Amino acid sequence: MNEQLFEKLDLAYEDMVVIRRHLHMHPELSFKEVKTAQYIHDFYANLGIEVQSGVGGNGVVARVKGARPGKTVALRADFDALPIQDEKDVPYKSTVPGVMHACGHDGHTAALLQLAKVIFDLREDLAGEYVFIHQHAEEFAPGGAISMIEDGCLDGVDVIFGTHLWSLTPYSSIEYRTGPIMAAADRFEITIQGAGGHGAAPHQTKDAVVIGAQLVMNLQQLVSRRVDPIESAVLSIGSFMADNAFNVIADSAKLGGTVRTFSPEIRDLMEQEMRRVVEGTALTNDCTITFNYFRGYPAVVNHQKETEFLQQVAKTVPDISAIVESKPQMGGEDFAYYLEKVPGTFFFTGAQPVDAAPFPHHHPKFDFEERAMLIAAKTLGAAALDYQKTE
Amino acid sequence: MNEQLFEKLDLAYEDMVVIRRHLHMHPELSFKEVKTAQYIHDFYANLGIEVQSGVGGNGVVARVKGARPGKTVALRADFDALPIQDEKDVPYKSTVPGVMHACGHDGHTAALLQLAKVIFDLREDLAGEYVFIHQHAEEFAPGGAISMIEDGCLDGVDVIFGTHLWSLTPYSSIEYRTGPIMAAADRFEITIQGAGGHGAAPHQTKDAVVIGAQLVMNLQQLVSRRVDPIESAVLSIGSFMADNAFNVIADSAKLGGTVRTFSPEIRDLMEQEMRRVVEGTALTNDCTITFNYFRGYPAVVNHQKETEFLQQVAKTVPDISAIVESKPQMGGEDFAYYLEKVPGTFFFTGAQPVDAAPFPHHHPKFDFEERAMLIAAKTLGAAALDYQKTE
Amino acid sequence: MNEQLFEKLDLAYEDMVVIRRHLHMHPELSFKEVKTAQYIHDFYANLGIEVQSGVGGNGVVARVKGARPGKTVALRADFDALPIQDEKDVPYKSTVPGVMHACGHDGHTAALLQLAKVIFDLREDLAGEYVFIHQHAEEFAPGGAISMIEDGCLDGVDVIFGTHLWSLTPYSSIEYRTGPIMAAADRFEITIQGAGGHGAAPHQTKDAVVIGAQLVMNLQQLVSRRVDPIESAVLSIGSFMADNAFNVIADSAKLGGTVRTFSPEIRDLMEQEMRRVVEGTALTNDCTITFNYFRGYPAVVNHQKETEFLQQVAKTVPDISAIVESKPQMGGEDFAYYLEKVPGTFFFTGAQPVDAAPFPHHHPKFDFEERAMLIAAKTLGAAALDYQKTE
Amino acid sequence: MNEQLFEKLDLAYEDMVVIRRHLHMHPELSFKEVKTAQYIHDFYANLGIEVQSGVGGNGVVARVKGARPGKTVALRADFDALPIQDEKDVPYKSTVPGVMHACGHDGHTAALLQLAKVIFDLREDLAGEYVFIHQHAEEFAPGGAISMIEDGCLDGVDVIFGTHLWSLTPYSSIEYRTGPIMAAADRFEITIQGAGGHGAAPHQTKDAVVIGAQLVMNLQQLVSRRVDPIESAVLSIGSFMADNAFNVIADSAKLGGTVRTFSPEIRDLMEQEMRRVVEGTALTNDCTITFNYFRGYPAVVNHQKETEFLQQVAKTVPDISAIVESKPQMGGEDFAYYLEKVPGTFFFTGAQPVDAAPFPHHHPKFDFEERAMLIAAKTLGAAALDYQKTE
Repeated sequence: MNEQLFEKLDLAYEDMVVIRRHLHMHPELSFKEVKTAQYIHDFYANLGIEVQSGVGGNGVVARVKGARPGKTVALRADFDALPIQDEKDVPYKSTVPGVMHACGHDGHTAALLQLAKVIFDLREDLAGEYVFIHQHAEEFAPGGAISMIEDGCLDGVDVIFGTHLWSLTPYSSIEYRTGPIMAAADRFEITIQGAGGHGAAPHQTKDAVVIGAQLVMNLQQLVSRRVDPIESAVLSIGSFMADNAFNVIADSAKLGGTVRTFSPEIRDLMEQEMRRVVEGTALTNDCTITFNYFRGYPAVVNHQKETEFLQQVAKTVPDISAIVESKPQMGGEDFAYYLEKVPGTFFFTGAQPVDAAPFPHHHPKFDFEERAMLIAAKTLGAAALDYQKTE
Repeated sequence: MNEQLFEKLDLAYEDMVVIRRHLHMHPELSFKEVKTAQYIHDFYANLGIEVQSGVGGNGVVARVKGARPGKTVALRADFDALPIQDEKDVPYKSTVPGVMHACGHDGHTAALLQLAKVIFDLREDLAGEYVFIHQHAEEFAPGGAISMIEDGCLDGVDVIFGTHLWSLTPYSSIEYRTGPIMAAADRFEITIQGAGGHGAAPHQTKDAVVIGAQLVMNLQQLVSRRVDPIESAVLSIGSFMADNAFNVIADSAKLGGTVRTFSPEIRDLMEQEMRRVVEGTALTNDCTITFNYFRGYPAVVNHQKETEFLQQVAKTVPDISAIVESKPQMGGEDFAYYLEKVPGTFFFTGAQPVDAAPFPHHHPKFDFEERAMLIAAKTLGAAALDYQKTE
Repeated sequence: MNEQLFEKLDLAYEDMVVIRRHLHMHPELSFKEVKTAQYIHDFYANLGIEVQSGVGGNGVVARVKGARPGKTVALRADFDALPIQDEKDVPYKSTVPGVMHACGHDGHTAALLQLAKVIFDLREDLAGEYVFIHQHAEEFAPGGAISMIEDGCLDGVDVIFGTHLWSLTPYSSIEYRTGPIMAAADRFEITIQGAGGHGAAPHQTKDAVVIGAQLVMNLQQLVSRRVDPIESAVLSIGSFMADNAFNVIADSAKLGGTVRTFSPEIRDLMEQEMRRVVEGTALTNDCTITFNYFRGYPAVVNHQKETEFLQQVAKTVPDISAIVESKPQMGGEDFAYYLEKVPGTFFFTGAQPVDAAPFPHHHPKFDFEERAMLIAAKTLGAAALDYQKTE
Repeated sequence: MNEQLFEKLDLAYEDMVVIRRHLHMHPELSFKEVKTAQYIHDFYANLGIEVQSGVGGNGVVARVKGARPGKTVALRADFDALPIQDEKDVPYKSTVPGVMHACGHDGHTAALLQLAKVIFDLREDLAGEYVFIHQHAEEFAPGGAISMIEDGCLDGVDVIFGTHLWSLTPYSSIEYRTGPIMAAADRFEITIQGAGGHGAAPHQTKDAVVIGAQLVMNLQQLVSRRVDPIESAVLSIGSFMADNAFNVIADSAKLGGTVRTFSPEIRDLMEQEMRRVVEGTALTNDCTITFNYFRGYPAVVNHQKETEFLQQVAKTVPDISAIVESKPQMGGEDFAYYLEKVPGTFFFTGAQPVDAAPFPHHHPKFDFEERAMLIAAKTLGAAALDYQKTE
């Protein structure tokens, strides 16, 4: 069966590129992906595939039933773009000023659309059911996944697979990982309200710069002292703002930063310990410190059985030359929410340009090796079909 | 003799008020006091008093010789205004938007002009010579005093006296102090050049916020550990600026602040120790930190003999009801430079409004008790005349 | 073949217990294990097995050749005890005051001796060669492994296996791990030489307590800022000693601590960064700080192929009910040195007492489930035999 | 009258030296000065002077009444020694191992005894009453002054004078100061109770060394940020004790130090701010920190009128060549308590050896110029007599 799948996908590759480039030229920001959603909907509708728009917002879900009963397998691709000015010099450059597909979601979408078409073509020979989840708003918390799930996109689903094209991983390789593969990425804001005054009269003030410095020092010790050394956590304070004349003692200071963790326990621990350090520092300095902690996406935690399954599947895809265990990535992904509901795995598809310098995701010159879309489609497709054979 | 002086000054008081209010309505910023300087020059020229304009910039110096030989006594008044919007509701309110005599220099000038006139009237009965130094640009470093001294305003001068009307000290009191009465007020700028990066990858960065926090902590220890506890020093960091997205580690941070000291040794010590702390913190963190230390005015250090002399003089001024030792003030004054060249003393003349709420100097509603000008004139005048009797 | 091995080992279990208890009653400290070495030597000599004493110190190495050519497989057991008073209430309690087998090395030795005897019995049916490394001085750096290797114990060896009985892991389980399984454990000493003086005159001193506090704060930031968050490192300062009268400022302070890492790069990084923080802190405070970093054993880094092989082998041992991936342990082991020379793997054999409360290793009441020796012997034996079948 | 006093004291100088050297050879520790007290008592009793022993402990008080009514003037000398081994090479070296008059109290006593004898001789010509307070236990808090006052030594006293021979101030000079002349010297103890553990498992501990470092840093900021820069305060932590193996995280740490202040407000502020910093640091780290603050002697605060009076008196003493304003000293003295009850002043009598190197007080080679005793006696005596003439 997989041979047929792979052959048909090889033939679909040119269309995949066309779709990808079309989307690339017409990017839309998170939660504003109206035309893109319509494009996806029309693609399915034109083929006569059952499709539902407006799922949890701009989400689109298509379903293809095989001829025989079997497992229900979901495959997910996201389709929002970023507020970045495209600086590439290519014919398919973004036509929208300040908006760009700088993360590869256009490729995810193109691959999934063509894969859906192929599976639809093969449906008479297939068991089970196939759910194609086209998710909006991955780039911007709270993301589109939560609302699409609430709106039923996982109803009846037995397993889910997803991938991310990865511009810094060599083309023709696949990276998998059991357990946490992407981090929980949270944000915090701290406002120190001291008492300002003349630089020459510190005793009449509560110096918000000194209090802020103390707080930074105290927070830095959480990772080294409170977190199990074989676990991972990051606490970074990106901004420290106390803008005063040189001879004025700061009335207040604003700090902002991020926390990255993989396990929910460490995540809870970090928030709770930060809160105590803030309270203790406020008491030490007899001042007020407000602390707001905003939870972003949780960690993407791959299921062991499905990840091992995917490794086996990947061996059957002829275009893949390397199957490598990934290190955990400290970035975030709202694929995390699907994996909290159903088994599955999320993997990286190597997409480093073969003939050009690679740029990191979110870079104004970001691009990827388009043939990686084909590998992504084949791997997701083979996983979907093979999954019917599992117990 | 002093009785005559006091009588004539009492008669001159109304003119003093007229002059003060005229100046108050027409304030000029430091180094731009062209009309004010002309006004002062014309006052002397019209009386036939020897006067020199353009001394070290906009400075004006007048000289009156007594009939007999004697000491040469300098009296100084400053005449620049501040970039503050006058918010008082009085007939003599500033007519220049955003510029205001918010520190009392108009009063200093009015008092000295009328005093000069009286001394000129009495010159036949006087010994010695009297130098009236009208200084521009006290409010803005490097100030006018240095260049006026370089331009000869102190040539032949044996002693100098100066006063500041003080809106927070009760009317009819005088505050003196031997030794340091106003602080050296220096400024510094620090730029930490670390290496920025993604908030999730601290190991690839040199986190300028954390380095800055370390530096603040280390600098705070200079006062408590390196300065003799019976001496005074202040080191305050007013601004700490690292403005980044929450998930970005700071590439650089800028800090600015002030150092206040009374003794030249402690001043040198602070600069030198700060420099070493900066270098040590840069080494600790393998980053670059630039440190610029800008010296403002040195401390105003009153001479003992002349201060004791002034205390005695003040007892002879009938309008003065209290002669009090001042605490050192952490603010700065370029009267300091005169006292580095010749003996003398600088004192505060209580000028708190008797019938209104007092506002601090540099406040948009600042005003002073005008009768304090008379006390200032009498005290300076009596000091000048009595000084002829000293050995 | 393995059935015969297992059967013979089952029969040898009673002797294993006898040997273990004899050793337990007669423990010897690291580098002083003269009688134990003699005991091991005699065991082999009495059986007519080729044995060499005095290998790299008190080490003993025995060799058994199979009838056919094949791989040379080394198995290692350590045999030194600890300076701990045995507080157990058992018939085989230590007879040496203050010395105790509180880590299970007696069990390692008993298991390996009986396994060697069984392999010797089976030698006519075996391919390859079997090297039994009885290592002295595992507990005390620099350990016995280095000198035994230098003295040739690994000559001709193709692979090495070793295990540690583990009192806190359930009996009948095995814990494996590819890559780092035990940490590099280093030690450091820091002496701050400031300048002491009277508590009331800090400006005449360089306060070693304040400098020490700064240093502790700065060192704590290495783990959180300089180490890749998905790597592990620990830096702990166990002692901080500045012993002075309350009104005396400390002349010096002594700090001591440990660093734990898994990768050589992070280990080098930590030492190098610590050195720079020390130098920077000395410069910041214009004092002298000496820093000595003593490297203990490197991390035990298991080879992937051999670890996967061992997992397979473990499935064939009937007594084993659970084969679990271990978390990395922050403790140290000089088995690390063998794995730097030849492929192999080190694993934990669950030895938690079934009918008694478990105590951690190095505890005065430490003991282990003796049947775990049998599992250790079977697993090591099966690994040795099966390894002949690998390519 | 003073001429007679000075003449008689000149004649008494040899006896003064004899007494001083006798006491120097037989020093006694604070609160154990039994023989010294007896010696003083016998001196008075033998002369027929009214004397009371056992005043508030080992204190001795003698009283001499003049022939006419007048003021009651108290003069105070302390007489305890220190736990220091005398390392001088002089005939009058201490005969008691480990105990030494290393602060000059022997000289204070000798001077006061001979002065009392002279005043007793002159009593027929004198007005008023003279109280000679020989105080025990100045060196060791809570000191002897409090209990002697409670026991009535100041009853009826109008004024008190006291002096300290000062080995680092030139002979023939006197140092006075209005207001604070010696500091309040307090002591504190801090115990951090964290949670210990293995150096490799910081997350299971609350690291008392890191918490202690934080606390030291936070406390250092009190002087620089909470104390008015023109006031004085010192906070020094002399001891930091956390004594553990290198690979153990500290369960607890003990810190001890001193606080020195001149004003009661700053003293209260320091204690209160320290307490808050301790509480805040405990909260920050979720641990327990106990804080004990022990008040030593308060600051010695001289009364203005009596200090100015003493300056005038000193001008009449022919042996005095310099009368200098003293800087405040950060050391403590329980003379403070007398000045809380009655007016008076405490001054330094320059006693630097003329022909030998000076050593600081409490040094094993400490000695003083003996002729300074004569100056002390003359100044105290003239003050006592002249005080009768004041209003």
